[in-house]
Amino acid sequence: MGKMVKEILSWYASDSPGTKTNLARVMNHGRLAGSGKFVILPVDQGFEHGPARSFAVNPPAYDPQYHFQLAIDAGCNAYAAPLGFLEAGATEYAGEIPLILKMNNHDLLHDEKDPLSAVTASVKDALRLGCVAVGFTIYPGSAKAQIMYQECREMIEEAKSYGLASVVWSYPRGTDLSKDGETAIDVVAYAAQIAAQLGAHIIKVKLPTAHIEQAEAKKVYEKAGVPIGTLAERVRHVVQSAFDGKRIVIFSGGVTKENDEAFYDECRGIRDGGGFGSIIGRNSFQRQRNHALAFLSTVMKIYVGELK
Amino acid sequence: MGKMVKEILSWYASDSPGTKTNLARVMNHGRLAGSGKFVILPVDQGFEHGPARSFAVNPPAYDPQYHFQLAIDAGCNAYAAPLGFLEAGATEYAGEIPLILKMNNHDLLHDEKDPLSAVTASVKDALRLGCVAVGFTIYPGSAKAQIMYQECREMIEEAKSYGLASVVWSYPRGTDLSKDGETAIDVVAYAAQIAAQLGAHIIKVKLPTAHIEQAEAKKVYEKAGVPIGTLAERVRHVVQSAFDGKRIVIFSGGVTKENDEAFYDECRGIRDGGGFGSIIGRNSFQRQRNHALAFLSTVMKIYVGELK
Amino acid sequence: MGKMVKEILSWYASDSPGTKTNLARVMNHGRLAGSGKFVILPVDQGFEHGPARSFAVNPPAYDPQYHFQLAIDAGCNAYAAPLGFLEAGATEYAGEIPLILKMNNHDLLHDEKDPLSAVTASVKDALRLGCVAVGFTIYPGSAKAQIMYQECREMIEEAKSYGLASVVWSYPRGTDLSKDGETAIDVVAYAAQIAAQLGAHIIKVKLPTAHIEQAEAKKVYEKAGVPIGTLAERVRHVVQSAFDGKRIVIFSGGVTKENDEAFYDECRGIRDGGGFGSIIGRNSFQRQRNHALAFLSTVMKIYVGELK
Amino acid sequence: MGKMVKEILSWYASDSPGTKTNLARVMNHGRLAGSGKFVILPVDQGFEHGPARSFAVNPPAYDPQYHFQLAIDAGCNAYAAPLGFLEAGATEYAGEIPLILKMNNHDLLHDEKDPLSAVTASVKDALRLGCVAVGFTIYPGSAKAQIMYQECREMIEEAKSYGLASVVWSYPRGTDLSKDGETAIDVVAYAAQIAAQLGAHIIKVKLPTAHIEQAEAKKVYEKAGVPIGTLAERVRHVVQSAFDGKRIVIFSGGVTKENDEAFYDECRGIRDGGGFGSIIGRNSFQRQRNHALAFLSTVMKIYVGELK
Amino acid sequence: MGKMVKEILSWYASDSPGTKTNLARVMNHGRLAGSGKFVILPVDQGFEHGPARSFAVNPPAYDPQYHFQLAIDAGCNAYAAPLGFLEAGATEYAGEIPLILKMNNHDLLHDEKDPLSAVTASVKDALRLGCVAVGFTIYPGSAKAQIMYQECREMIEEAKSYGLASVVWSYPRGTDLSKDGETAIDVVAYAAQIAAQLGAHIIKVKLPTAHIEQAEAKKVYEKAGVPIGTLAERVRHVVQSAFDGKRIVIFSGGVTKENDEAFYDECRGIRDGGGFGSIIGRNSFQRQRNHALAFLSTVMKIYVGELK
Repeated sequence: MGKMVKEILSWYASDSPGTKTNLARVMNHGRLAGSGKFVILPVDQGFEHGPARSFAVNPPAYDPQYHFQLAIDAGCNAYAAPLGFLEAGATEYAGEIPLILKMNNHDLLHDEKDPLSAVTASVKDALRLGCVAVGFTIYPGSAKAQIMYQECREMIEEAKSYGLASVVWSYPRGTDLSKDGETAIDVVAYAAQIAAQLGAHIIKVKLPTAHIEQAEAKKVYEKAGVPIGTLAERVRHVVQSAFDGKRIVIFSGGVTKENDEAFYDECRGIRDGGGFGSIIGRNSFQRQRNHALAFLSTVMKIYVGELK
Repeated sequence: MGKMVKEILSWYASDSPGTKTNLARVMNHGRLAGSGKFVILPVDQGFEHGPARSFAVNPPAYDPQYHFQLAIDAGCNAYAAPLGFLEAGATEYAGEIPLILKMNNHDLLHDEKDPLSAVTASVKDALRLGCVAVGFTIYPGSAKAQIMYQECREMIEEAKSYGLASVVWSYPRGTDLSKDGETAIDVVAYAAQIAAQLGAHIIKVKLPTAHIEQAEAKKVYEKAGVPIGTLAERVRHVVQSAFDGKRIVIFSGGVTKENDEAFYDECRGIRDGGGFGSIIGRNSFQRQRNHALAFLSTVMKIYVGELK
Repeated sequence: MGKMVKEILSWYASDSPGTKTNLARVMNHGRLAGSGKFVILPVDQGFEHGPARSFAVNPPAYDPQYHFQLAIDAGCNAYAAPLGFLEAGATEYAGEIPLILKMNNHDLLHDEKDPLSAVTASVKDALRLGCVAVGFTIYPGSAKAQIMYQECREMIEEAKSYGLASVVWSYPRGTDLSKDGETAIDVVAYAAQIAAQLGAHIIKVKLPTAHIEQAEAKKVYEKAGVPIGTLAERVRHVVQSAFDGKRIVIFSGGVTKENDEAFYDECRGIRDGGGFGSIIGRNSFQRQRNHALAFLSTVMKIYVGELK
Repeated sequence: MGKMVKEILSWYASDSPGTKTNLARVMNHGRLAGSGKFVILPVDQGFEHGPARSFAVNPPAYDPQYHFQLAIDAGCNAYAAPLGFLEAGATEYAGEIPLILKMNNHDLLHDEKDPLSAVTASVKDALRLGCVAVGFTIYPGSAKAQIMYQECREMIEEAKSYGLASVVWSYPRGTDLSKDGETAIDVVAYAAQIAAQLGAHIIKVKLPTAHIEQAEAKKVYEKAGVPIGTLAERVRHVVQSAFDGKRIVIFSGGVTKENDEAFYDECRGIRDGGGFGSIIGRNSFQRQRNHALAFLSTVMKIYVGELK
Repeated sequence: MGKMVKEILSWYASDSPGTKTNLARVMNHGRLAGSGKFVILPVDQGFEHGPARSFAVNPPAYDPQYHFQLAIDAGCNAYAAPLGFLEAGATEYAGEIPLILKMNNHDLLHDEKDPLSAVTASVKDALRLGCVAVGFTIYPGSAKAQIMYQECREMIEEAKSYGLASVVWSYPRGTDLSKDGETAIDVVAYAAQIAAQLGAHIIKVKLPTAHIEQAEAKKVYEKAGVPIGTLAERVRHVVQSAFDGKRIVIFSGGVTKENDEAFYDECRGIRDGGGFGSIIGRNSFQRQRNHALAFLSTVMKIYVGELK
């Protein structure tokens, strides 16, 4: 097993061998196997944004098995989806790719300012479906954040008790945050810290901007001279904010970008800032399959340094 | 074992030998071992205030293991932190310092007037991590205080059932309290009483001012001539309010003070008023390590009377 | 055992021998043993009103053990207090006086119009501490009364399952009640009935005035000519309202009265109206100890008819 | 994923995707990955026969981690061992080889005629240690077989509920069987059938001889002309007896054979009879490490047909 | 913390930080703190052999607190005893010495050939009493060994779930073993292996003789030339049999020896063979207190090499 994998596992010394095994399964799978880098395919947009907004641009993607096959063929480390999508392919693809069960979901038919995701699956479901990890979304900043924090830590505790790993999507949102604030560097770093404190093994955040949302935080960033000018610097700060780099932090691909090169530049920023990789949904399955495979291949080459 | 330790344990005669053992472990550890005095390092500010506001001034403190080592090297009685921070060092430092698992947390991305902390860990987590105690924050004065009281007493009951001790952070806050009221002498004394009635073994409050918040209380203080002019007098009154001195009451270090001497004076006030010590977070880890060690050493000398 | 005790126990025929045993322990203890009369010392004011307002007038009362000793020396039937206060003396005074664990509490740092007490102890705690009964406060009239009724009946059900008795503090309060209405004769009688229907063994209410709060009730009281002119008549009506005298109803001592004689007159009213006694907190522990002992002795003499 | 793996998984259509995933993990690991053939390293002899009899001939094998490394370096599909042995390496080798927790064990310090293995681990242990399957020994023929059958089916039921697979060691033994009967073709085939009926996913039996133990069976074998003359024929009959080849049946390596070629011939018999492979303990770890690696390499080449 | 302690803890990598913490507490206590060596005081002879046979020779030893004080004053790593003995001192000595609750016991009023110890305490008792570990006796060789193995592994599993450590007394005995066989080198080594496979953290066996009990084992010892001529060689072989030295193996002091020097020689053998120390009951408390303290001091000096 790669030295990087061993080193990363050493950061999770309080976990059981079972949880370490499942983390290792993710790190030892696909084209990035052994590198300590991650490209994960998540497909929860059908629930989160609706089917047409998610799949009409590439209709084969309406089929759940399309995504299993895409993740496998692209050499992703894992495939993450809600209960229904996983149930619709877990038997057919048993053992072919590590699975992450997305445990809570939110839809746009009711889109409140202070969102609360609904718990839509259980840890026992994850075991039944052969998953390596459970995933959970928290919305720091929401008036309902306390509820999600408690659900999240209960899910993580139960997952650990069965030797599973956990992934936390930490997406700031709520009445107290401006739209820009959702991706402000101070807010994203804070969101990463919260997920780490809740016991997450893998933390997913959005790429941060140079904006600073909180007045009190602004003083500190300026006084301490925290470098946040480039994307790489901001990624480095977020990673530092997750236990000084001792938790796996990956970044969401975000809305579909027409321009592949712009996306690659973001990946270079993640890589150069010490980020652990990407979790790329819409930019994968909203591209035509061949395009998506080539696109993901380039992303992976960037992460392992085969491409600058 | 020191006479002071035996005497303090005698105040907790209704507790099991297991809980007494864990209280003794805290009192018999570090440079204050046997003295019945406490200096505890708490580090939950990453969650409570955000990572940059907590650690940017002293970047090594982003690393969870920094705090274990600081608490050990400074000779603290115990180290208290949320789940994630403890998991990130409990194996490496197993058996080297008593640990307190902070069971609930609150963040500032949504900062409501009547705060409610989220439960972010379980008593079973505390056993799994080898902790001697669980810690819980209540906000007397919050419209949501009842929820926290109930969660707190359930945590304490479960902790006692496993032979663990409990620490309650009792921080008045809420719509009915003025800003000054949060540290008013009557309010802080009341907060100490509530924590004691909930069954807390160790009570943490803020240092009180001479302000009196409640009109009804003001009459009593004036009529009875309760002395509250000096810090020592106020500390004495708070300690008296926690079962006439038969519960361990310690005081928070509060915001970082540039002036070490001002902080030492506070410690003298705590000592002279019969307080049991301090729980010093930001004033420890926001100083450079060498400074922090010298600073904490001085604090400890004050508590045991080696320094006036 | 006294005939009165046997008769009173006969009213609780549906209860287990265990619960009857614990009721008998209360009735067979202290200076009123065997008389079927009660004087109970309750000390929850530290939580309910704050420590200084409760104890500053008589500082030895900050010490939890002061109250155990006072209840024993005065010959009270029982001592009632919240978890923390009982834990701080239950071992030292084991077997010396029947204990009642006060299971829920409310504080004044947030004083809402429609109060809800927080559950601060469990029935298992009562067993652990050697209590004969659990006590619970309900606020009929509060918008949150339903929550407390349910918690109360669950507590009573669990208490009975272990052979414990129950005491219900039934204090009308809430937005729909006027200040005078809280002690109106119709309201107090109603509160006694609710407690009895919830399964309470001992019911504690405030002394009623001749005011009638509810318009519909007023018509009935007038039409039926219910005598409510004297305190004794009102007490008789309240006792009648609690299953025609077949439930133990005791009355709170209320705020501290400077004038002992005025208090004694209230006791005479309770006695002459067929009340079962008093539960006297502030009027006991806010007097100096010697005064309190003489005061309680007089009260007891009134109840057993040694004094008119 | 190999066609063979897909086909084999199709035989277990009633199992959850989780159990199929764990079966696939075994089939997709090591040098036989994808072939549908198995070579598993089991090391329970320390418990079953004693440490010196197991390891003195090759002292590095006293070290639990020796066996993890041997299984990995030899390219085995999985490593199977009792609780203690797995705990002593599961962290260090997390994710490097599929693990099977041996759930019951028997020792020779008391060697009864009708043996009963003690349950020495739990299914939750298997999850905690990151195992893909649990293993259980039954002794058909023992007067205590019913106890083991029930324990076995409970273990299988629980394992399936968590998405784990199961391996059953089915070793006929007991007062009603002659020594020769333990490996008689009718008895071994019967043992395979019993394990399959109990719900086992992988069945381990001893290589059968041409002896027929049961008189009633003998008549049938002769009448039907079941071919059992060669080892391949007997293997074919055993595989047929486990649901007509739709359950994975593997064969134990048995006592250490000095002669490698004799062992290879047995493997050829297994292969040619449609057996799925071997579970080779003593013949692996009682050889010197380099010899063992070469030996196992040859065995694997035979199974995939690279060697005749 | 000592390097030896860190190294020993590294052998238990699959355990939780809680269990490691409790192991560390034993290793960091008393005069051998930090050395990785153990001298534990066990006092279960009152139950096992009867009070007079145990204590009449030194009557102060009838008092349970005598043994707490002896273990503390002698600087032992821990004190182990049955439920009653621990309950009779756990409060008075809370926090002064690590405690091990002996979970099962056997008495001589019925002394069967195939003994079965009765379970006389629970893991929850151990938590209530503040213990660091639970202890369990198994009798390999007994016809009832299977029952004890199962009880033992259940106790260990539950103990681990609460972060406690486990100690297994592995004493071969039963109809299939000769009297000499109980301490035969092959049998003692086998007993150590069984305890290790059951998941024990600390294994206690008797000192082995050069006798070999099992015929099959004898062949192996002779063929492999396992050196067993001296006590040190035999200890080395037993330690090797417990996972190649990666489990803590300590040796019982056995029957009271009049000759201190003979006992010291045994300790030298244990030390020179790589044993981890002794668990010395009768030879401690059946000596007069002053003698016992001097005696144990010498034993400890031998273990750390201060005495040859």
